[in-house]
Amino acid sequence: MTSKASENINVWLTQINNDFKAAVSVDCVIFGYDDDALKVLVSNCDMPPYTDQFSLLGDIVHPDETTDEAAKRVLIAKTGFTDVFLEQVQVFSDINRHPLSRVITVAYYSLIKIDEDHLLHLEKNSNLRWMDVCDITSLAFDHFTIMKSCLSRMQKQLREQPIGFNLLPEKFSLLQLQRLYEVILNIELDKRNFRRKLNSLAILKDIGEIEESVSHRPAKLYAFDKSIYEKKKNSGFNFDL
Amino acid sequence: MTSKASENINVWLTQINNDFKAAVSVDCVIFGYDDDALKVLVSNCDMPPYTDQFSLLGDIVHPDETTDEAAKRVLIAKTGFTDVFLEQVQVFSDINRHPLSRVITVAYYSLIKIDEDHLLHLEKNSNLRWMDVCDITSLAFDHFTIMKSCLSRMQKQLREQPIGFNLLPEKFSLLQLQRLYEVILNIELDKRNFRRKLNSLAILKDIGEIEESVSHRPAKLYAFDKSIYEKKKNSGFNFDL
Repeated sequence: MTSKASENINVWLTQINNDFKAAVSVDCVIFGYDDDALKVLVSNCDMPPYTDQFSLLGDIVHPDETTDEAAKRVLIAKTGFTDVFLEQVQVFSDINRHPLSRVITVAYYSLIKIDEDHLLHLEKNSNLRWMDVCDITSLAFDHFTIMKSCLSRMQKQLREQPIGFNLLPEKFSLLQLQRLYEVILNIELDKRNFRRKLNSLAILKDIGEIEESVSHRPAKLYAFDKSIYEKKKNSGFNFDL
Repeated sequence: MTSKASENINVWLTQINNDFKAAVSVDCVIFGYDDDALKVLVSNCDMPPYTDQFSLLGDIVHPDETTDEAAKRVLIAKTGFTDVFLEQVQVFSDINRHPLSRVITVAYYSLIKIDEDHLLHLEKNSNLRWMDVCDITSLAFDHFTIMKSCLSRMQKQLREQPIGFNLLPEKFSLLQLQRLYEVILNIELDKRNFRRKLNSLAILKDIGEIEESVSHRPAKLYAFDKSIYEKKKNSGFNFDL
């Protein structure tokens, strides 16, 4: 190394060591769908002044991990869910967002189907609970703002990508699919228009079966055809439900 | 405050002071359109081992600012552009992404029209230059990855939002608009399909004028109708070009 280069490095090292450093955290918005409602996993907050409120699941990023890895660690440690998709949404960095220190946080969301296994795991961890999104009007810190931002991103992605099919059984009726979109997007859909759009997308396969043990007239069952979707996607097809 | 609450705060303060802290930076990908090419504003990198490479425009976030404010500060300080839109894209946090320290960075992109004023300002700042996106095959640090990620996000938003119209004169021909989409998306568009799509969107107004002083047959001129676009957007209309 030339003496000029080594001098440059020293200037840079001095500068970077004098630079302001902040704690960096991740906050995970875990959305859960249970056929009837869209819920969010929250925890009792034990940090004053928020001890009577709920907060999102989060932690400080460690020296040996990326923010993606930190988010995954938090999720596994607090919920036991190992196989869930996490999407990075946005940084929240208001100067006073944390009462004790400057903490810059990276928000992630996840969308899972709430099933028996998840419920059993949560029972062991009494600090956690699923709350209906519609019932949440405030959370500790800026977590309500973070939740709203992740909700918008997730709703946009539900319309643009087939992330909703993971929340249904492998075989489902069109009514189940419509119900899912209505619950998560918090809107009412016109049945005929919804089916027309689905038809034009042509990403479902009719599996030649009908619902069993239902009180109403049994509906036809469908499955999401991932291979057709991937082919269409690669040729510039636009998923938009 | 109860003694229990004050004890809690002390536990938290101790914990947060012992927590790992990182330098947090912003990196801005400034895309510029000049009718012929999509360019990116880069700077000579003066940090070893990258001294023969170009880097994006960035800086460490200060204690008294958010990441959005830091990105805006960098942009104004380095380019003099005060009125440009900045979109937060993604956090990059690989442990070894910076050779001298742990630096977690937040990437932003901006899309501007390169005009005379901008060029004059840049001449005063000889460290900066516009490089054609297609000519960039590497950058200092992980800046090439950051640039690619911001390029994808910007291209997606160009298709979904009318951010392209800011890059054209107020009155433009359909050929100018098509050319803009072709250059920025790096694709060829079929003229008839493009015009059919534009027609179905119905967000342009025919202003009853034609091009002046052109060597070819003068084309009709149009303007983007922002008020119609806003009305349509609020009623659930999907911009998709």
